[in-house]
Amino acid sequence: MTRVTVWNEYRHERNQAEIQQVYPHGIHMAIKEGLDPYFDVRTATLDEPEHGLSEDVLARTDVLTWWGHLAHEEVADDVVDRVQRRVLEGMGLVVLHSGHMSKIFRRLMGTTCDLKWREDGLPERIWVVNPGHPVADDLPLWIDLPQEEMYGEVFDIPDPEELVFISWFAGGEVFRSGAGFYRGRGRIFYFRPGHEAFPTYYRSEIRTVLRNAVRWAAPGSGPAPKFGWSAPIASASADSQG
Amino acid sequence: MTRVTVWNEYRHERNQAEIQQVYPHGIHMAIKEGLDPYFDVRTATLDEPEHGLSEDVLARTDVLTWWGHLAHEEVADDVVDRVQRRVLEGMGLVVLHSGHMSKIFRRLMGTTCDLKWREDGLPERIWVVNPGHPVADDLPLWIDLPQEEMYGEVFDIPDPEELVFISWFAGGEVFRSGAGFYRGRGRIFYFRPGHEAFPTYYRSEIRTVLRNAVRWAAPGSGPAPKFGWSAPIASASADSQG
Amino acid sequence: MTRVTVWNEYRHERNQAEIQQVYPHGIHMAIKEGLDPYFDVRTATLDEPEHGLSEDVLARTDVLTWWGHLAHEEVADDVVDRVQRRVLEGMGLVVLHSGHMSKIFRRLMGTTCDLKWREDGLPERIWVVNPGHPVADDLPLWIDLPQEEMYGEVFDIPDPEELVFISWFAGGEVFRSGAGFYRGRGRIFYFRPGHEAFPTYYRSEIRTVLRNAVRWAAPGSGPAPKFGWSAPIASASADSQG
Amino acid sequence: MTRVTVWNEYRHERNQAEIQQVYPHGIHMAIKEGLDPYFDVRTATLDEPEHGLSEDVLARTDVLTWWGHLAHEEVADDVVDRVQRRVLEGMGLVVLHSGHMSKIFRRLMGTTCDLKWREDGLPERIWVVNPGHPVADDLPLWIDLPQEEMYGEVFDIPDPEELVFISWFAGGEVFRSGAGFYRGRGRIFYFRPGHEAFPTYYRSEIRTVLRNAVRWAAPGSGPAPKFGWSAPIASASADSQG
Repeated sequence: MTRVTVWNEYRHERNQAEIQQVYPHGIHMAIKEGLDPYFDVRTATLDEPEHGLSEDVLARTDVLTWWGHLAHEEVADDVVDRVQRRVLEGMGLVVLHSGHMSKIFRRLMGTTCDLKWREDGLPERIWVVNPGHPVADDLPLWIDLPQEEMYGEVFDIPDPEELVFISWFAGGEVFRSGAGFYRGRGRIFYFRPGHEAFPTYYRSEIRTVLRNAVRWAAPGSGPAPKFGWSAPIASASADSQG
Repeated sequence: MTRVTVWNEYRHERNQAEIQQVYPHGIHMAIKEGLDPYFDVRTATLDEPEHGLSEDVLARTDVLTWWGHLAHEEVADDVVDRVQRRVLEGMGLVVLHSGHMSKIFRRLMGTTCDLKWREDGLPERIWVVNPGHPVADDLPLWIDLPQEEMYGEVFDIPDPEELVFISWFAGGEVFRSGAGFYRGRGRIFYFRPGHEAFPTYYRSEIRTVLRNAVRWAAPGSGPAPKFGWSAPIASASADSQG
Repeated sequence: MTRVTVWNEYRHERNQAEIQQVYPHGIHMAIKEGLDPYFDVRTATLDEPEHGLSEDVLARTDVLTWWGHLAHEEVADDVVDRVQRRVLEGMGLVVLHSGHMSKIFRRLMGTTCDLKWREDGLPERIWVVNPGHPVADDLPLWIDLPQEEMYGEVFDIPDPEELVFISWFAGGEVFRSGAGFYRGRGRIFYFRPGHEAFPTYYRSEIRTVLRNAVRWAAPGSGPAPKFGWSAPIASASADSQG
Repeated sequence: MTRVTVWNEYRHERNQAEIQQVYPHGIHMAIKEGLDPYFDVRTATLDEPEHGLSEDVLARTDVLTWWGHLAHEEVADDVVDRVQRRVLEGMGLVVLHSGHMSKIFRRLMGTTCDLKWREDGLPERIWVVNPGHPVADDLPLWIDLPQEEMYGEVFDIPDPEELVFISWFAGGEVFRSGAGFYRGRGRIFYFRPGHEAFPTYYRSEIRTVLRNAVRWAAPGSGPAPKFGWSAPIASASADSQG
């Protein structure tokens, strides 16, 4: 069973009464609820020691999901190093909403990951543009969210290997809102919605996307690369070796 | 259980004694043997009625594998139409070796799919270049084939969405030998080795690749697109509909 | 100077008075006007002999632009073959609006190229999503069109190598409206707007896009592939040969 | 005229007599010689103040080429920050050979950029796999280098947007040796050959590749993204604004 660690900054929900009303146990618990019982799910938050992401926890994590917003800069660089290394080794990473500006996502993308935004609470419509992609499994052709924050292009990311969703916003913007990336042996999926002020992570279709993204990002069993000086291979006709 | 139809031209093995020795029951049976018992596998060949690919057979096929060489032009256009339609609807397609010049592969690619070749029986070494890709599962970093036909670049295909293998040939050429494509709701994987004169499809690692490719190409459960005139959607804040 | 042939079906403008008012000399003349004097531009239309696309014309064409709508099926297959061959040899192709269902575009894509549409005359906003792409040169971050036909996802094309524009429609849809493809030695650009009932091709920013697309699609001087049986190369240490 | 800054670590050539014999004036001067007089070329080296890459120099650089090997860690982080920012703003970057492990390339890729290698001085053959790509202009179908260092897959980079070359090595390896990336508004090209012990940068075909790569990576004139809070756009039917 795929082991998932749901990471959350967990500040809004403790510090702002109106957010607490939406997510009384934290965004991570709402996300966890949508992943149980399909996966073996634990949670981790910023204010735990090592942000809850010790070497040991990461070693036992197949897919990490990431929600952060206010406190990206408080995430310790050595934890970011550790997560990056694990992703390149094969751990899946699902980056959510304002996690686009997290240290770990910017580190793995190499770009600013910036975008334009407006907290207007108008509708968002998420269109499936690649219906054959595993992250589109069991979804309708579009998902309507009655209220969300707007994110607009230009979204400063590398061209994703796999573009699954594009969002339409009532205010006139569009956004590549579901995007898959291969990095090292790991897979990364970015999924846009999830502003803290709206109950997005309780919605059934959003939970379907999260489950699909976790399944898609789960590690495979391909060979571990060997880097550095490499001896000649005895003979091209020899049997293969890993 | 994924339902696989293994299609084979099945001429070399009946008409040439030296090929019959390598594949006495046909290439399709050697491929089938490697897929059993992981999948529900049937076979179909060129000289059966409708080439063994009736509407009914295709309707009950999740993934079709294709090996052809001498007789591409004998494949009826209406069968090609039918297979193309099914792929765009979601059926997986695994195209093998000389199948690169089949009508169905050229139809789906839109290019000539041509390449350079030399039947020299020298070694081929297949390198994994994307070890995080599902088709690389359970493989070593490279696979050595002691004798194969050479295929060399330029391989006139669209840039694959997912490049998994690159081959090295003892004579001095390279080739993109494992390539994944999304088309419509279907997934297509091209895998290079498998010249009829060499026992390639009996090899354990090649069989692992074929199983991986079938799993990767198996249909998902994403939404079926609706094309043509489209009514306005009642309200952006309405619940989503498929 | 890049030689451009602007191809137009040229039926709406002759048969429908209200379209004639918008494009009295045909859509092709409006497009040509936007490309002169940057390029050496000629036009060709469906009802000319060989649709104006003789071997000789194509041999002297660097980039072909294509607008068609009602009469895709009237385009002769041998002309489609000829255009496809020329594109794979290196001729650029810029496919416009309803040309998405042309025989030549579907042939080169291998998919249905279908989409959803609604002729509602509401606004379209075209967003640049890759501001570093040559087709975005000299453009603003978005282009507003006060009235256009709606095209909506799913757009059944292969994932484009280069996605430059995404459109927002007032009715609630999105569309990948500027997409570049490499096929053979040729480059293909699809650009969405241009419904016959609206004066889209007179607009300055649209003309900038068309000029950029022609420049991007213009043939390079890379080597012509050699296909088929290939002799061993004398020595890996020999000087290279083309 | 495109302004190019050729950056070189410039240590091997000063500290090792046998390298000095190959590149008596430094690798940068051999590269510069191949770019003059097509571009406005200057050079910069590690041991200059700010490594020769002051804000002012970068502001006047359209394309930066990068060769480093022994002293990647000596490059100051603030200079790396500065170069990254300029690339994302639109400056082209051409990364050469052992520059794959430079801080700037790893920063922009987000992966380890590691690979396997062997300094065996055996032949390399570079195959064009995308003959329609601008970086393949005026090249033969392959380039033979009589002696080079071997680099082998797995090359731990993101899947390049544009794969132009694949190398074959006499010892049995392959490598994606010419790869284009879009990042922000900038374009990055990685080109493999150029071990300091061999006179690779004097070769005519290698110089053609470098010129093509510089032309391809030169900045465009697309719009600068605006990030952060964004006011609603007055009306979808208003004229567009940048």
